[in-house]
This record gives sequence, C-alpha cells and structure tokens, in this order.
Amino acid sequence: MNELKIFAPATIANVSCGFDVLGLALDTVGDEMTIRKVSQKGIKITKITGQDLPLETQKNVAGVAALALLAEIECDFGFEIEMNKRIKPGSGIGSSAASSAGAVWAINELLGKPFNLTDLVRFSMEGERLATGVSHADNVAPALFGGFTLVRSSEPLDIVGIHTPKELYATVIHPQIEVKTSDARNILKTTVQLKDAIKQWGNIGGLISGLYTENYELIGRSLEDHIIEPIRSILIPAFDEVKSESLKAGALGCGISGSGPSIFTLSKGESAALKVAEAMKSVYEKVGIDYDIHVSKINKQGIKILESN
Amino acid sequence: MNELKIFAPATIANVSCGFDVLGLALDTVGDEMTIRKVSQKGIKITKITGQDLPLETQKNVAGVAALALLAEIECDFGFEIEMNKRIKPGSGIGSSAASSAGAVWAINELLGKPFNLTDLVRFSMEGERLATGVSHADNVAPALFGGFTLVRSSEPLDIVGIHTPKELYATVIHPQIEVKTSDARNILKTTVQLKDAIKQWGNIGGLISGLYTENYELIGRSLEDHIIEPIRSILIPAFDEVKSESLKAGALGCGISGSGPSIFTLSKGESAALKVAEAMKSVYEKVGIDYDIHVSKINKQGIKILESN
Repeated sequence: MNELKIFAPATIANVSCGFDVLGLALDTVGDEMTIRKVSQKGIKITKITGQDLPLETQKNVAGVAALALLAEIECDFGFEIEMNKRIKPGSGIGSSAASSAGAVWAINELLGKPFNLTDLVRFSMEGERLATGVSHADNVAPALFGGFTLVRSSEPLDIVGIHTPKELYATVIHPQIEVKTSDARNILKTTVQLKDAIKQWGNIGGLISGLYTENYELIGRSLEDHIIEPIRSILIPAFDEVKSESLKAGALGCGISGSGPSIFTLSKGESAALKVAEAMKSVYEKVGIDYDIHVSKINKQGIKILESN
Repeated sequence: MNELKIFAPATIANVSCGFDVLGLALDTVGDEMTIRKVSQKGIKITKITGQDLPLETQKNVAGVAALALLAEIECDFGFEIEMNKRIKPGSGIGSSAASSAGAVWAINELLGKPFNLTDLVRFSMEGERLATGVSHADNVAPALFGGFTLVRSSEPLDIVGIHTPKELYATVIHPQIEVKTSDARNILKTTVQLKDAIKQWGNIGGLISGLYTENYELIGRSLEDHIIEPIRSILIPAFDEVKSESLKAGALGCGISGSGPSIFTLSKGESAALKVAEAMKSVYEKVGIDYDIHVSKINKQGIKILESN
C-alpha cells in the first residue's frame, strides 16, 4: 500500500457543557485527502483545492502535524499530501483538525500503524497549535477516534472514546461571518463562578451518562452551557433565535460548535434533524444571512479510507 | 405492613471530581431505623440510641424530612421513628442524610409508594437544610438510589443513577476530629480558575465513563480534584500522607469524603481495599490520631428492609 485516499471528518468541539474536553465527529461533511509514499524524505504538500491555503509544509497544519509524526520515527522515505478542502476554515467545525488528523492518520496507516490513536492526537495537536496558537485536542480527538470523545486530561494526554447512541444526529448551520478562534478565546474570562462550574460538571456527567445509556431525554437536558455560551453567543448573529427555534422544532439541545460561528443541534433520528434544519435555516433567511447547513449522523468511525493503492 | 426496620447507608459525597454533584452509598456502615404507622397524625421521634440527638421533630433531620413528605399527601394517621445511629454526626459520610433518607423512604413504603425516588430526595434535602443550612442532595441521592448517583441539576432536581462496577470497594477512615460542614463550606472560594474547572469536568467525564465501562484504571485516573481538595485538605490532619500511602498501597484514588474529615479511597476488589485500609490506619497510628475505619463494597441497593411487620 503506497497511497491512500481518505475522508477526514468535520467535528463539533465543546458540545455545550464540555468546553475544551468534549467533541464529536460528523459523517456527511469532511475533507478528502490523498497521501502517498514517495522516495524523497519529508513532507510535501502538492495540491490544495477548495480553499486557498499555504502549500509550504511548515505553514500548513497538515504539514506540521505530519512532521511531528516523522520526528518520532526513523523513515527513509517521505510523503506527498493532496487536499480537497471541503470544510471551510473559520467555520467552527474543525477544518484545521480534519487536515491535521487526516494527514497523520494516513501516514500511520502507510507506515504499518506504529502509533496508537492517542499518539496521532498528539501529533495533530501540533497542527492545531499552528492554526489557533493553542494545541487543543477537542477537535482532533473525535476526528481520529470517531463518535464522541473526551479529553480527560491534556497533560498527560488522556483521550476517552465515549459510547455514541446510534440514532443521534447533528444539524450544523454555518452563518457566513467570520469569528476568529483567537477572538473567541480572548473574550472568555479566566475565572468562573463556582456555582456555574458545579452546574457545568453536573451537565457533563449527565451527558456522558445519557450517551452510555442512550437516554436521549437526559442527553437533551444535559446540553446546557452556563459558562462559555453566554459570553460567546454574542459574537454569533441571531444565536438566541436559532436556539429557541431549533428547540421548538424538536432538537434535544443546541449550542455553539467549537468557538463558532457555526451553531449545532443534536436530534434523535434523521427526520427530526432535518426538521430542525428547516427551523434553523428559516431564522437566517429571515434576517438575510447566508449560511451553509449540514445534517449528519454522528460518525462513529472517524477517518475513512476511500481508496487504497 | 405497619412497621419497617431498615438499614440507611452512609454515603460518600463529592468523590473527588464531583463536588456537590456526585455521591455513592456504602454497604457496611449505616443507621438502623424503625418506622411505624400510628393513629396519631404527624411525626413523633420516640427513641434515639447511639448518639445524643434531639427528639423534637422540628429539630431532628429525620423529623423535618418526614414532615416535608407529609405536607404533600393527605394522611389521616401518623408515624413514629426510632433510630439507632451508627454513623457519627460530623464524620463526613452522610450521617444526617441517612436519617433523612431512611425516614422518608420507609414512610413512602408504608404509604404504598406514592412518591418516586426523586421526590424522596427532595424531602430528604429539607433534613439536609436543617443539618447544614444548605439543602444539598449529594448524600441523600446515593442513600436513596444506591450505587453512584449524579445530581445533574438541583433546580429543577434531576438525579441520575450511574452504573456501578461490581468489584468497586471503598475504604473510609474517619479521624476523630471535628470539621463543621459550615466551616468546610465557608473556606471555599466563590470563583475558580477556568483552567481548573476544565480539568474538573474532564475528570468527571472520565469517571462517569469509567464507571459505565468498568474501566478501573480510568476511574483511578479520573479521581482528581483540582478545586476543592487543595483548600479543604488543610483542615484534615495528615491528609497528604494518607493519600500518598493509600495510593502506594494500590488504591485507585483517594479524596475527601464530603466536607471531611473522613478520607475515602476506592479500590478494585475487597482484598485491595483491606490492604489500603492498613496503609491508611498506619498513618494515623504513627501520628497518634484516633480513627474509625470502614471497608465496604459499593451498595447498589441503597436503603434496605431488615424486618417488616
């Protein structure tokens, strides 16, 4: 096997109550990447379609993540990377994470899997550091593990794959405005009220329990965020209305995807998720904001091989 | 059925990473209570052995909890309560919670179960309010539900029973010093660092996941408390040494039971829990502090009927 064409999924980080620790992978939106072994050592990015992103290895998140992997193994050949970027950078659904995770995952496959998934998260986090200035794992972990993932600890890195109920669907709407991850981070306070933190860890406990027991009502009740959402949602046009309309339409819960501006909802079943999509769209149509919208089953597999040669 | 003799378990609240939301029930330590229907309306506490506690209904946590229940139902008879208190008040293993929960649980049985467990938690919380000034649920919930419980939300009250692995044992040591719950609460700060809160909700997510998947290593890694323990542990003599010795002896984790001064550990299997008990005891023997010690399987049932007539 010398070449792999893969699907690297978009991801939703934070998932309301799990700021910086929770994430999930999507199934219908993601990048396509082709990674091939070549005799020349190192990493070369040969082609990027879909988005205008740097080809220089050191300036590209996939390149940086791949180099982090190669730094830990003896390898007398190299890799070329081609990307068809379908996830828009700055959308809040893990565009950089998909590129980083896809690159290291495919290279690991082509090398005969010398590294485990947690190692791959660690390498991918170097791509995230380039993209956002912070080496967070909450998007790359679900891209690599699939399903819901928990970053229990960043140092040492401890990633936990969480059981993902089979009827759980996500609807994500991306209003076409820019929110920089760094701005979304800088707006946050460094301290929080203990009483709010208690609510938050009650909710994350409830969400994890609801996922294992496939209790959709409990999942819905737990999708609350008393800490980040009240602050960040002011950066997202019509957030409150999108949220209230989606809940009225039957969503289990609604929150900010990553650092925004995308807004996600979770629903039980595809038809519910599609109905919620209509409700979310109608808000942005009314206020005249362009959007992309995605309805997706939760992707339990993570990265998928499309072709191998 | 006119009379019930019951076992009302001691409980460990907080469980390291779950301040104010998590708790678990013990099996080998608890109060015995006898509750009987009588023709006279209201609640009468007729006898308390084991501890010097008030018999006046309004001043006794069991009395207050029972009155809260009776306030929500038409009842043309009343109840007498006898208690053999085996859990020392002020020990940090839910002495007041056992009395409150036991009283309302038995009365509900004798009434033909008009209330569900969450209702009983709500009534018992009135006893907790009398005992501590705060109507918290983190001890009464596990006493009533058994096993591990999560208070996802206090308002509205939402209690989640969490799967409890069968080989999980607790060891609890109670140094014979007094730490008032109100003091242990007043010492806390009202704000926490966001970075510490993130660690805490990563850990509670890990702990809940570890409980469902019976992953003892993950349970152990998740038993961390970056928020409360660093502050409250200074009120408990030799806390750091008890913790380090218990971990060396094989405990999965160690923390403060409730607001202390009891210290709990969790272990996989009874023989491990007994070995840990020896390590904990040896610390207090060395420094010359009297103690009680309990080794117990996690009690999955909660309150148990000992006799019914």
